Amino acid sequence: MPRQALAFLVPARHPGDAAAVAALFDQGVIRPEEVVAILGKTEGNGCVNDFTRAYAVEALGHMLAARLGTDLATVLGRVAMVMSGGTEGGLSPHFLVLGVRPDGPPAPAPALALGVAFTPEFPPEALGRMAQVDATAAAVREAMSQAGIPDARDVHYVQVKCPLLTSERMAEARARGAACATDDTYASMGLSRGASALGVALALGEVPRAALDDGVVGRDWGLFSGRASCSAGVELTRNEVVVLGNSPDWGGALSIAHAVMRDAIDLPAVQRALSAAGLDAGAGQLPAEEAGRLVALLCKAEPSSSGLIRGRRHIMWDDSDINATRHARALVGGVVAAATGRTDLFVSGGAEHQGPDGGGPVAVIVRG
Amino acid sequence: MPRQALAFLVPARHPGDAAAVAALFDQGVIRPEEVVAILGKTEGNGCVNDFTRAYAVEALGHMLAARLGTDLATVLGRVAMVMSGGTEGGLSPHFLVLGVRPDGPPAPAPALALGVAFTPEFPPEALGRMAQVDATAAAVREAMSQAGIPDARDVHYVQVKCPLLTSERMAEARARGAACATDDTYASMGLSRGASALGVALALGEVPRAALDDGVVGRDWGLFSGRASCSAGVELTRNEVVVLGNSPDWGGALSIAHAVMRDAIDLPAVQRALSAAGLDAGAGQLPAEEAGRLVALLCKAEPSSSGLIRGRRHIMWDDSDINATRHARALVGGVVAAATGRTDLFVSGGAEHQGPDGGGPVAVIVRG
Amino acid sequence: MPRQALAFLVPARHPGDAAAVAALFDQGVIRPEEVVAILGKTEGNGCVNDFTRAYAVEALGHMLAARLGTDLATVLGRVAMVMSGGTEGGLSPHFLVLGVRPDGPPAPAPALALGVAFTPEFPPEALGRMAQVDATAAAVREAMSQAGIPDARDVHYVQVKCPLLTSERMAEARARGAACATDDTYASMGLSRGASALGVALALGEVPRAALDDGVVGRDWGLFSGRASCSAGVELTRNEVVVLGNSPDWGGALSIAHAVMRDAIDLPAVQRALSAAGLDAGAGQLPAEEAGRLVALLCKAEPSSSGLIRGRRHIMWDDSDINATRHARALVGGVVAAATGRTDLFVSGGAEHQGPDGGGPVAVIVRG
Amino acid sequence: MPRQALAFLVPARHPGDAAAVAALFDQGVIRPEEVVAILGKTEGNGCVNDFTRAYAVEALGHMLAARLGTDLATVLGRVAMVMSGGTEGGLSPHFLVLGVRPDGPPAPAPALALGVAFTPEFPPEALGRMAQVDATAAAVREAMSQAGIPDARDVHYVQVKCPLLTSERMAEARARGAACATDDTYASMGLSRGASALGVALALGEVPRAALDDGVVGRDWGLFSGRASCSAGVELTRNEVVVLGNSPDWGGALSIAHAVMRDAIDLPAVQRALSAAGLDAGAGQLPAEEAGRLVALLCKAEPSSSGLIRGRRHIMWDDSDINATRHARALVGGVVAAATGRTDLFVSGGAEHQGPDGGGPVAVIVRG
Repeated sequence: MPRQALAFLVPARHPGDAAAVAALFDQGVIRPEEVVAILGKTEGNGCVNDFTRAYAVEALGHMLAARLGTDLATVLGRVAMVMSGGTEGGLSPHFLVLGVRPDGPPAPAPALALGVAFTPEFPPEALGRMAQVDATAAAVREAMSQAGIPDARDVHYVQVKCPLLTSERMAEARARGAACATDDTYASMGLSRGASALGVALALGEVPRAALDDGVVGRDWGLFSGRASCSAGVELTRNEVVVLGNSPDWGGALSIAHAVMRDAIDLPAVQRALSAAGLDAGAGQLPAEEAGRLVALLCKAEPSSSGLIRGRRHIMWDDSDINATRHARALVGGVVAAATGRTDLFVSGGAEHQGPDGGGPVAVIVRG
Repeated sequence: MPRQALAFLVPARHPGDAAAVAALFDQGVIRPEEVVAILGKTEGNGCVNDFTRAYAVEALGHMLAARLGTDLATVLGRVAMVMSGGTEGGLSPHFLVLGVRPDGPPAPAPALALGVAFTPEFPPEALGRMAQVDATAAAVREAMSQAGIPDARDVHYVQVKCPLLTSERMAEARARGAACATDDTYASMGLSRGASALGVALALGEVPRAALDDGVVGRDWGLFSGRASCSAGVELTRNEVVVLGNSPDWGGALSIAHAVMRDAIDLPAVQRALSAAGLDAGAGQLPAEEAGRLVALLCKAEPSSSGLIRGRRHIMWDDSDINATRHARALVGGVVAAATGRTDLFVSGGAEHQGPDGGGPVAVIVRG
Repeated sequence: MPRQALAFLVPARHPGDAAAVAALFDQGVIRPEEVVAILGKTEGNGCVNDFTRAYAVEALGHMLAARLGTDLATVLGRVAMVMSGGTEGGLSPHFLVLGVRPDGPPAPAPALALGVAFTPEFPPEALGRMAQVDATAAAVREAMSQAGIPDARDVHYVQVKCPLLTSERMAEARARGAACATDDTYASMGLSRGASALGVALALGEVPRAALDDGVVGRDWGLFSGRASCSAGVELTRNEVVVLGNSPDWGGALSIAHAVMRDAIDLPAVQRALSAAGLDAGAGQLPAEEAGRLVALLCKAEPSSSGLIRGRRHIMWDDSDINATRHARALVGGVVAAATGRTDLFVSGGAEHQGPDGGGPVAVIVRG
Repeated sequence: MPRQALAFLVPARHPGDAAAVAALFDQGVIRPEEVVAILGKTEGNGCVNDFTRAYAVEALGHMLAARLGTDLATVLGRVAMVMSGGTEGGLSPHFLVLGVRPDGPPAPAPALALGVAFTPEFPPEALGRMAQVDATAAAVREAMSQAGIPDARDVHYVQVKCPLLTSERMAEARARGAACATDDTYASMGLSRGASALGVALALGEVPRAALDDGVVGRDWGLFSGRASCSAGVELTRNEVVVLGNSPDWGGALSIAHAVMRDAIDLPAVQRALSAAGLDAGAGQLPAEEAGRLVALLCKAEPSSSGLIRGRRHIMWDDSDINATRHARALVGGVVAAATGRTDLFVSGGAEHQGPDGGGPVAVIVRG
């Protein structure tokens, strides 16, 4: 019997609300020990002081620990928790639970496949540099192998959670005579996401190794992955990689597709991704029955560095009251909601080397 | 020769930037004395302390006064200045200059027609009540007559600028023994917009007179106009009404159409408005050449009072960092940008009785 | 041997940081079973979507549960957790742990005494009305009795945690034909705090029973307690009351005093409170050694409803980017930091009937 | 007859409110042609998109132009307009009008003296470097000479308005092969303020020339002026310098004094400045009659770069909802309001090399 990838999207009433995830276990549609990752959109600001992410991780972790009869640390070592803060505009807070069942039903066509892998621990000076790029590429290849996806063209979404530099970590490096890529904590988040995305691009053949060196990270936006989605977190010191693709070796009714938005209002790209996944997006917005087959839409949002969208000025970078990434998520959230007729969509900020400048990848998981 | 309605949309580099409007005069496409209204999206917060609106009015007013050889007060008494604050998400700050030329070219089909009218001055206790509803309805009828639009079905957009209650005005009413509809300045803005919108609905036959009384204003959201767009300003004590429609008596290549969004993500309604105006919206997003024919898109945005969009929770009302109307403009801005491929769109907040709860009117002006 | 009140203030590195409180147990200065309340300043916005409060309660609760060998619910039923969000300006996030030791050292003078009591559960329609006022007054009297403080003049601070109305609770009341004091969830927080504060005022003899009726709650700001500090939380349906005062029956080196700030910049009142507690505030700011004897300063902050401070306009009510209570905490935080030379001070917003309009109570706990 | 420095502080009802300044002319207390500078606190966010500053300049400029029978450009070339955005906490929006009367009354003691000077125009590559430092020092010396203040110890406040780098200016420099100090527009504001402050420090002998080079600007916070207050504006390409001090050659009843706050809560320093100016600050807060003699208090506010105030964590740098400088102004505003009992105080952010890290200069102008 083939393996089966499981994916359930449930609403969150607040960031500490583990009830809907627990209900999946109570309903028997997935078992706690099958869970390999939980992605979440929480209603914080998605920036430095967004504690809704940690709160969600703690609440989900305690719930899972109780269900598994283990402790919080064990759960967090085993289940990748990727919380993305910020549900601006109309976005609806939710959790996406991903699991693997060892003995699924056979499928007539390639089905959603899933692999998880980790890089080794990074010393602080590796972040935002080729060391992180190469290690991430290796982890992506390992996760592909684990998922049984030999061909990179069958990979449609790679979620990476990566470390950042803290003052303590930078001091530790300095004490050893090592120089970090930046001395700015906030900037290190972007560099770590960027190097991770370039690692994905390298593994998937989107960018050749020869085009990469330390100097391009965070600078040459022409180099990017159309399938990477990276987020940085203070709680880890290695990269966690979740690869999603399609494989004939997996069973069940789910499958995945993707496209690349060239800018923040690229509705046609969203429609291409929906169509590629088998949904009828012809008329502009998915009809309700098609929207119901959509399990999850995952995409990145980032203001264009030019300050323009198709030649017209946006004010995202100049607004000192609302962070630019919050504007970007609200905008892209409107575009993908227009396409799908739904608002419980995973729109995540911080898209360095994840799609072209001002654009980004969009992936969709559908039920057949 | 028929009259001709003129409409030019120009970008604003900042709220005090009158240069692009002045350039229209320098280029000779419109003359200062032809201008009857300027609508603007300025990059403030769109809420109480948004001074970008007054700054834009002052800058445009001084420029027009110099061009017309008159003073600021005369300009403001003659040109309706409707500034809408808030360019959240990807919205691009801009001004829309509306004018009337007495001797335009003939048109083969009904063309954009435009009428302006004013209510009498309101005492404070009239605001948010039937007195304001009825006076607004009368002004709409007068503006229609002035525009030569006998049939209400040919009216597609009615812009109303209306007063609000200040502490001073409320005190003056109290001193006379009169009771105002509210003692909350901020709430008075919504009531004034709401009563004005119901006045439009009454004039256009969207709501029967018998369904209206003081008690429904700001309460019965089932009563609304699908063509009203109202904004409240502290600087006036009467309603200013601009009616836009199509008329066989007018010339030129512009025309207007509208539709009603039933909620904030109603892309199909936006597409219906675009199609009704003769643009090819079939494929989801306007092709670039069609987008170039779009002169202006004007719509309203407001969070649904239920806290839900198609059954899914939104966080707009609960966010104490970003005002709910800012979230709503960003969201709807994403939806209309998805439809048009443009971001210089007039998305305005505060939609009481202007479209259904959580939705709103969308109007488009196109070049034939 | 007399009872002894314990009070320890520790810093919080983030809202979920229970480590410094746990360290108190490890150091043996207080035992988990001695803890009766934890007050905290967390770094959220202090408004509707401030999840830092719930996160702190969850983190502290899990830690205490592990230390006490019990579960979260038992801990929360036994220890009053009062989290106040918002550390604007220079305020420093911290927790204040309050405990009772049954067998403390004797004291030469009246020492800090502490009593905890609860009202019965409130039906929704009781909130913000005399039923809540009277029940709170009874709970204050019970807590005084428990603390062995017969004379209300020896009470210097009363912390109340009170319920609020949710949509569900209002619907339940309506279904029974009962009318609540408001149909606005946010407004219910102020009414519940206000009625609770008037209950404290009644119990302490600050306001006569005859001056009180349902109509004064949230309206007549001339009625207030100079010693109440109230906060509303969604998680409870009764009032929790913690009374702090001085009593000759208690031992240890701590004592408490208070004063009432007549407006937000009333430095002399803060100095009077410090002096009354035995600190030398003569020179303007406490010298470092005196500041070291200060265990905790607790006060309320609220913008004056007039929009003025000593006749000069403040912009707190008109700022749509920063909530008025955030401005007020930052301002009062500056004033009390000026007086004490410290920033780890408990400045809490929402001061309805807690001190005069625009002012509020200030209490200080000192080590002898 | 001696020259006389004039200083009047008037409230602003909104950023475009020139009425109270105009009323000074109507009352005859100062003549339009005597005005040399207007400093203002406007109620914007004080950051990038704070248009309240430009709005105030435009409104005051148009009013002055009408009074002087000239045009806006002439007024702006003649009167230094220094608008500081941000009235967080309890700060009250106001304008401070400074003027010079050629024939004032004699004074028994040294009186407030005032000089204005300008640097030459700066090429973009000079900003934030020694070229700007040296030119500013020369302008300070010239303004001192003009004011008749030979001894730097008699200078108590130097207001500098300085340019910033825009994308256009940077491109112009690049085209000539010149490299600017930064390629970040926002960062250029801090560098320009910092170099200007070091120029003041150099002129006043606070820092020796030998300690200065390009590398210390924006880096070595141990170098600073205790009397400089600098703000950057996009509208100028040279530095404008206003020197305030005391001189026996000037008449009238005004005088000035200053002190340096070592951190944001340094109440004793504020009290020293007040005392040095002859006000009785002994009891903690100025009595009302003494507060009435205070014409203006001007100070700088900035979060400490360490993230600590006297060893306790502040959250200013980590708050992605409220800019750090907004927190700092609110905090310092509370401290100086505590000292003076007033809220119409000029607390300005961005204190690079203006006072020690986290602290800043505080100057007071009093009526004798």
